Amino acid sequence: MSFFTLRLVDQGVEMLDQRALPGEEKYVLLRDGEEVARAIEDMVVRGAPAIGVAAAMGVAAELSRSPDEELEAALDRVVARLRRTRPTAVNLSWALERIGTHLRTLLREGASPERLRREARAMAQRIHDEDVAACRAIGDAGAELVRSEASVLTHCNAGALATAGYGTALGVIRSAAREGHVARVLACETRPYLQGARLTAWELSQDSIPVTLITDSMGGALMSQGEVDLVVVGADRIARNGDVANKIGTYSLAVLARAHDIPFYVAAPLSTVDRKAASGADIPIEQRSSEEVVVFANTRIAPEGVRALHPAFDVTPAEYISAIITELGIARPPYERSLASQTR
Amino acid sequence: MSFFTLRLVDQGVEMLDQRALPGEEKYVLLRDGEEVARAIEDMVVRGAPAIGVAAAMGVAAELSRSPDEELEAALDRVVARLRRTRPTAVNLSWALERIGTHLRTLLREGASPERLRREARAMAQRIHDEDVAACRAIGDAGAELVRSEASVLTHCNAGALATAGYGTALGVIRSAAREGHVARVLACETRPYLQGARLTAWELSQDSIPVTLITDSMGGALMSQGEVDLVVVGADRIARNGDVANKIGTYSLAVLARAHDIPFYVAAPLSTVDRKAASGADIPIEQRSSEEVVVFANTRIAPEGVRALHPAFDVTPAEYISAIITELGIARPPYERSLASQTR
Repeated sequence: MSFFTLRLVDQGVEMLDQRALPGEEKYVLLRDGEEVARAIEDMVVRGAPAIGVAAAMGVAAELSRSPDEELEAALDRVVARLRRTRPTAVNLSWALERIGTHLRTLLREGASPERLRREARAMAQRIHDEDVAACRAIGDAGAELVRSEASVLTHCNAGALATAGYGTALGVIRSAAREGHVARVLACETRPYLQGARLTAWELSQDSIPVTLITDSMGGALMSQGEVDLVVVGADRIARNGDVANKIGTYSLAVLARAHDIPFYVAAPLSTVDRKAASGADIPIEQRSSEEVVVFANTRIAPEGVRALHPAFDVTPAEYISAIITELGIARPPYERSLASQTR
Repeated sequence: MSFFTLRLVDQGVEMLDQRALPGEEKYVLLRDGEEVARAIEDMVVRGAPAIGVAAAMGVAAELSRSPDEELEAALDRVVARLRRTRPTAVNLSWALERIGTHLRTLLREGASPERLRREARAMAQRIHDEDVAACRAIGDAGAELVRSEASVLTHCNAGALATAGYGTALGVIRSAAREGHVARVLACETRPYLQGARLTAWELSQDSIPVTLITDSMGGALMSQGEVDLVVVGADRIARNGDVANKIGTYSLAVLARAHDIPFYVAAPLSTVDRKAASGADIPIEQRSSEEVVVFANTRIAPEGVRALHPAFDVTPAEYISAIITELGIARPPYERSLASQTR
């Protein structure tokens, strides 16, 4: 890889500013938890697994800068702040829960401030490294679902840029491409943020994987013309029954895939499975600003006064999903059972 | 109406430049057939019925400026030129056939140059006026399909801006709104040209009909949430069996509507029915430039070197269409029969 999504450095967290892509590859340094929280809110970094990793790194960065006597209060404060940044990606609370529980245990055991800071950094790095490893395992497991000469449709960006590296849906595509099985990736541009056009097209080009851009409206017509062999997407949160929250538009693609007998796969690490959510009805869907739809590249595309809906995600019921690919392998319906048996 | 789409004036054809909307309401004057042809190619005017009217007016404008002795050659030349502008909207060749046949008959009868020019203008005006009348009839016929408090989803712009006035799909919405039956119009923004955001939202706002913008990816999720009562769209060409070519994305919406048991209506004048096309397979689909997808508002949204597909239209098989609304009423399946019985 010629780029990295985010990394822990001595001064804080370094991130590729995804808002500037594909025009510019620029990195920003975030020095404390508040700066990391704002980077998540402003979508400098996005993608459920990457948000989880960023949050853990934000905790570590905050503790590095907090005085000895305020460490416990700083931990509580930064975890609460980061948890509020975005509501749908469960990896965020999963990562915060994991690093928070670990550090509070150390605090109770009377660990020194230095040890606490060191352990925070070590845990953030571990969450990062495990995410990369999970993505590689997802990619390799999912690659067996991709037959030779495949035309693969994907939505949004579930790539290296959405994770600590390698990607989930794009991890499957990377592993399948390595085996020579990917003839073409059809990337939905993914309005309004254009993660498909800006990010997926960019990172696949960097890897020399053939990618063709389409508007979000073209998927159905291409399926009807036999131009799509399978669909693979990522996830922001998966309920116990296999219902999947992912970028708005995912549900439409899943219904269209079903209508054309095309397999529809979801690729995500187990940190995306919310064991507390029985079904998609338990998943909060973030409503973002109308302005993000009606203003495009600093140009107003709709008349003054016209508002847009902007649910950032939708829920695809499990019945539309052919398989969920995790780092432990391929889960098939019924997901209540197959996901439950996949525990780390 | 506070605006007009196009009109015949002494100096040529005056058109609202739809590329400048919604930011600016500006009119351009096109003096001859070549200028009208370029306006159609460049999408100053678009929408199948409006393109047909524009072409007829282009013939009249050309003949107004041609010397007496060249009228017959000018007629052949301008008809051929205008016919080449865009391939999918059949109203274009319908209008050219109609005005061309009429003028050639007059030529054979030895009509004077002045009479020929006058008849060309009269026929262009008649095609314009009949289109407005057809749209009003379509609107009033279709309004009975819209129950009280309806949330109506539409795609692209099949409005006053796509016709000589009043609109087809938006004609149905206008007539239903006049009866107080429209709670909300959901306008798909319609990438890449954003006719929904720029044109439909603009003209419905002008008429104080409540319109909410959505991205093309949101339709399915909103249908699943019970937020859509019916879908109504226009058409660029309808085959004898009821297959409909319309703006790319229409097919996806039709499949999604079917999956959610939501009625899916097509509204179009009979000039959109191609009696020579047995099915959608006989309809040519315009492939437009990749640049129109990857560049927006002078900003490149995808990396250099990445290309996009850009079919401007797709074909929705008749089986997905609940009814086709024409100026002669509501045609129901089987369309082979119901459309055949609707002749003017």
